Amino acid sequence: MKFELTILGSSGAMPFKNRFPTAHVLNIHEQLFLLDCGEGTQMRMSKFKVRKGKIQSVFITHLHGDHIFGLPGLLTSLGMNGRETPLNIYSPPGLEAMINGLFPQAEKGPPFKIIYHELDTTISQLIFENEILTVETIPLSHGIACNGYLFREKKMPRKMIKEKISEYGIPFKDIPGIKLGNDWSNPEGRVIPNNELTLAPPPPRSFAFCTDTSYDERIIPYIKGVDMLYHESTFLEEDADKALATNHSTVMQAAEIAKKAEVGRLILGHYSARYEDLDPHLLEARSIFPASYLGYDGAVFDLPMKKS
Amino acid sequence: MKFELTILGSSGAMPFKNRFPTAHVLNIHEQLFLLDCGEGTQMRMSKFKVRKGKIQSVFITHLHGDHIFGLPGLLTSLGMNGRETPLNIYSPPGLEAMINGLFPQAEKGPPFKIIYHELDTTISQLIFENEILTVETIPLSHGIACNGYLFREKKMPRKMIKEKISEYGIPFKDIPGIKLGNDWSNPEGRVIPNNELTLAPPPPRSFAFCTDTSYDERIIPYIKGVDMLYHESTFLEEDADKALATNHSTVMQAAEIAKKAEVGRLILGHYSARYEDLDPHLLEARSIFPASYLGYDGAVFDLPMKKS
Repeated sequence: MKFELTILGSSGAMPFKNRFPTAHVLNIHEQLFLLDCGEGTQMRMSKFKVRKGKIQSVFITHLHGDHIFGLPGLLTSLGMNGRETPLNIYSPPGLEAMINGLFPQAEKGPPFKIIYHELDTTISQLIFENEILTVETIPLSHGIACNGYLFREKKMPRKMIKEKISEYGIPFKDIPGIKLGNDWSNPEGRVIPNNELTLAPPPPRSFAFCTDTSYDERIIPYIKGVDMLYHESTFLEEDADKALATNHSTVMQAAEIAKKAEVGRLILGHYSARYEDLDPHLLEARSIFPASYLGYDGAVFDLPMKKS
Repeated sequence: MKFELTILGSSGAMPFKNRFPTAHVLNIHEQLFLLDCGEGTQMRMSKFKVRKGKIQSVFITHLHGDHIFGLPGLLTSLGMNGRETPLNIYSPPGLEAMINGLFPQAEKGPPFKIIYHELDTTISQLIFENEILTVETIPLSHGIACNGYLFREKKMPRKMIKEKISEYGIPFKDIPGIKLGNDWSNPEGRVIPNNELTLAPPPPRSFAFCTDTSYDERIIPYIKGVDMLYHESTFLEEDADKALATNHSTVMQAAEIAKKAEVGRLILGHYSARYEDLDPHLLEARSIFPASYLGYDGAVFDLPMKKS
């Protein structure tokens, strides 16, 4: 069961050489979620073999161009590829009018239904839930309505030990209940405890996506202990004044948040175009939080199933 | 003196692998003109070493997304790069509202002046003229307000033969007139004919940009004899019905127009994503018009100065 983040674009506001504007795909059990959609997202999907038709929902952090200017083209191409499934798009208010304004009457826009969900970015909310995961928002500080997203895999059912079915002659109708953790009584009334019949499922995995934001410890309670954190790291420490002035973070600030929140690993990204070489980013991050990794266009970060 | 077309994007409505949506840069004497601006144009400029800050004006053929969705990002980046020079954008009506709608109040849009010129696409007009060139529109048939653009280099002044200046003792003040073609009279009243004093300048060069359009012979008078013609060639002949249904051209129709208009060379482009291999496009075009060339992302077509 996959839980995998693909970086489609790792640049900040301006693209730079091989770094395209912000876009990511999160694959949870083959359900694909697009996180932000900077210019060129559909080309990046093609290049990195992400099947755009499989995108189930889109989560936009905020309405700055480098996070949304790839949407009009992507929506058009999905329509040309024959998409009929409705597409849910979650974002701060205002996106729908921006997108619709790009499709003049002569060209009515994509032929499938787009459902826009306007989010209140001042509070954390559960905004999405299905059989395998939940998504909650994380209020961020970027000088504009902006939130991050927290993806939590749901607890999977316990695994039935197959040999026990024949050993005790358990009827199939009782198995779903056992997988949920119930004990089982045989026809003679003897109770077999659940832990003799099943194995615990692997612990659920989690990922927090935090961009764009200045250093803000208020997000720590929301992201505490997540397995993987993407935290924007636009600037090096030497440019901390620029981070402050533009409501962005330095890489050391990102690492500080990762450390305080005791996350499993930190993915860096949203780099300013002023930096060509990103080695200093990695070194600065690891000086504070060793499990830091450079996000780069095309990188894939996999969270393997944990041992139960 | 350059006259050079760089293809930034050669795809039709949907990008395909290494083919980005429509965008081209025309360099005339180091003045750069952007022709259409599909998604990813700024990244293509970076990849193919086109200095985006040098773009003088933008010419948009029509308001379909694959010709304009790169504009918001490009304009943003030009602003971030400190552009102060106003930018002229020529297009059918409606573009200004579409672009402005993308910059919410929180983000007021680029800090330099953008001058939108709304064009009547039903007639051919002279819309631009400076010291080295003119630009005229070419009405196209695409089921939406759409026009092509015809770039004509102006006739350059005649070249003074330097030896003649000392031979006849010609004062400097008379030289500009001689370069314009005037004869010269020496103080004794003897007339020296201009062709003894000067060499003819190279003939002016010309380029017509015709996309998107169905096969339409009415454009022939406008493009007659141009040195280089870009004509969309979305489909192969076997898909002529699709060309007809979508107001596009087949490659053989593009070649037929090139042949009838007796142009110097034909550049193909705007290929449908249904074709991976473009060799058949080239073969079909050359079967009708031998001087046909495949436009592909990164290709540069140079028109050398002609011999006078």
